[in-house]
Parts: sequence; C-alpha cells; structure tokens
Amino acid sequence: MRVRNKPWAAEKLAAHPNYVVTNPTELKGKWNEHFEKNQPIHIEVGSGKGQFIVGMAKMHPDINFIGIELQTSVAVMALDKILEAELPNVKLLNTDGGLISDYFEAGEIDRVFLNFSDPWPKTKHEKRRLTHRSFLENYQTILKPKGEVHFKTDNQGLFEYSLASFSQFGMVLDQIWLDLHASDFEGNVRTEYEEKFSAKGQPIYRVEAHFVN
Amino acid sequence: MRVRNKPWAAEKLAAHPNYVVTNPTELKGKWNEHFEKNQPIHIEVGSGKGQFIVGMAKMHPDINFIGIELQTSVAVMALDKILEAELPNVKLLNTDGGLISDYFEAGEIDRVFLNFSDPWPKTKHEKRRLTHRSFLENYQTILKPKGEVHFKTDNQGLFEYSLASFSQFGMVLDQIWLDLHASDFEGNVRTEYEEKFSAKGQPIYRVEAHFVN
Repeated sequence: MRVRNKPWAAEKLAAHPNYVVTNPTELKGKWNEHFEKNQPIHIEVGSGKGQFIVGMAKMHPDINFIGIELQTSVAVMALDKILEAELPNVKLLNTDGGLISDYFEAGEIDRVFLNFSDPWPKTKHEKRRLTHRSFLENYQTILKPKGEVHFKTDNQGLFEYSLASFSQFGMVLDQIWLDLHASDFEGNVRTEYEEKFSAKGQPIYRVEAHFVN
Repeated sequence: MRVRNKPWAAEKLAAHPNYVVTNPTELKGKWNEHFEKNQPIHIEVGSGKGQFIVGMAKMHPDINFIGIELQTSVAVMALDKILEAELPNVKLLNTDGGLISDYFEAGEIDRVFLNFSDPWPKTKHEKRRLTHRSFLENYQTILKPKGEVHFKTDNQGLFEYSLASFSQFGMVLDQIWLDLHASDFEGNVRTEYEEKFSAKGQPIYRVEAHFVN
C-alpha cells in the first residue's frame, strides 16, 4: 500500500505505548499480561489502515487482537482508529511480519488473519507472498496446535497460489468462498481495500485453513 | 444430464463390444489386456456425451481411456464419437460410477477425471456429489499411490465444496484455476457442457489434486 510519507508518524506511534507496542521481544510469551484480559490472541499480518482489526476488536471483546504493519505512515492511520474507538483488546505492532516468531512464543497465538496481502505476481517474488511456505512455517510456530489462518483477497492469482501453498504445506482447507459478498457468511469485517475492490464488482475470495499440528 | 430416452440405445451399445465393455467385473485387474497397448489408464467418471474422453484419447495415444456413464441414452452418443474416431485407446462403461471399485483392481488406474459433475446443491444430497468423501475412497482404492484426480466445473458451490472435501480427505491440491479459459493452461479438451457454459461468460474452475498414499 502506498501512502504519502509522514515524517511525524514514528513519533506519534511512540507517544501511545498503551496501543503501540515498541518492545515486542520483551513481551514474547507474555502478551496476555499486556492486555486487560487474558483471552485468545488473534493477529493480522499486514493490518494496513486498521479498519479490519479495529472492527474485529469491537465485534469480539473476548479476543485480543494485534495488528502488524510494517509501514509507519500506514500504521499511524490504524492508530487513529484505535484512539477513536478506545478499545482495551487491540494493539499495534509497527514491524515486519516476517519477524513474528521473534515476538511470539510457540503456541501463543490462536489465529492469523491475512487480508488483501500484496500479490507479488512475478514468480521471482514468490517468496515475498505472505502465503509462501516460509511464512507458513512462522505462522505454524506461533500458533497453537490446529491453529487457523483466515485469508481473503480479491487477487485471483494470489488466491489460486495460496490454496495450493496451504495444501502442499500440509494444512487442511476448512471452507472456501469464491464470492464472499454474495455468500451467506456472517460477521465479515471489510477492509478499506475490500470496499474499494468490491465496489468494482470484483469477487472477494476467502479461505479458512488450519495446521494439522 | 437429461436427454430423450432412446429405447434402442442398450442394443446399440451391446452391438459394439470392442468399444463398450459389458463384463467389467471379469476385466478387474486385467483391463490393459483388453486394450491394444499396455499403458497407463485414465478414467472419466460421468463421461456424458464423450467429447472429453474421445478428445483426450486422440490427443494422448500413449494413455488408455475409459469413460464411465450411467445413462444409456447418453453413453450411446459417446459411442457414436468413438465409432467415428476409430481409436484403439478408448472404451466405454455404461454403469454407475459408485461401483468402480468392483470393476478395477487396487492401483490399476493412473488418473481420474471428473468434469462438470452434477452439483447436487442441496445439503441433503451431499453424498451424491462425485467429490464426496465416499467417492474419494473409491478413487483412492483403484488409483496407484499418489494417483491424481483432475476436476473441472462451472459450478461455484460444487467447486468450493470439492476443494475442501479433497483437502479434508487428506489429498494435496497441486494446482488450481479459477478461470481456466483465461489462463495459459495448454491441452484443455472442452466438454459439451463446458462450451455451452463458457459461452455464457461463466468462469470454468479446475483443480489437480493427488492422494498422499
């Protein structure tokens, strides 16, 4: 996602340690102590402008949510939504999704969300896709046994790739939607991206999958 | 598929024992003796009017093909295509696809094709779908280890169901196409159904999957 650079963004994030975690390695294995309630933790890798993670946190007060976003100028837009909502069950992490196994203990996380991840369509960039097996290894490490990955995208090529990648990694596909918005799926929280692409008539693809171990 | 009943169809099929197998249980484990050449065997469960199986047999002389079609009045249309093509590597079996493990020895078959199978959209009819786990058990029995199932359909609900059914059975999804005709897939042989539905602008879904054992 490209947004205008905001030189003040890092400072603003640092000014809200209650919502933006700056010492993730210190919290490894102890994330629930940092939340108001000790309850299952769901993370979103690539949380963008935060509409999904904040919407989910509102809808599910019995879950703790952590949004992970590398781009500081984007993460600060998610912070604004969190500040407005004043929710006790959502935090932000302004870092690289590839580093999550440094920040979370094995089995500390209950579910991973991936929404409208960068498709990296060129074969030479395959390893950068968030559904590449190297990322799946990380998710498996930090997830509880049989932990779930919920993924949605409007990108046909990325969805085709990801279904095969999940399956070839040994994950089980629990349910698949080839046109989410035309389905009877309830409780969908739309991302900013999803609203934009759906308005163009593009179908939204979704899958729920789990690791066997 | 509904076609006009043809009272003479059974007699016509019986008149061509060279192409239409009437004693499948006797051939169990010995199918290759019934073909001109001893080579891998691919079957199509629900071969309909035969355009796919005959087209594949033309394109792949190094494979023996068997089309299985329950409806006599439909199977006779496939017979006409075979008679016209005079191919040594394709046979028809006018029987129920659910009985294949009575007709083929364990490991006798190399690949199973399913094309535009009846979607049976009602949940109460789930067991009739050719990608239900009870059918997958049969395919696994007659297929060689790591045997493949290649499935295509225009039916979104059946495709969503089938991907999950394959995965939950323990099969691995090798590749997925969400719009086959817009892809660079080569060697696609269209069925009668496929031509009709594709002309309406409907995307054709396809998956190649294999059993682990």
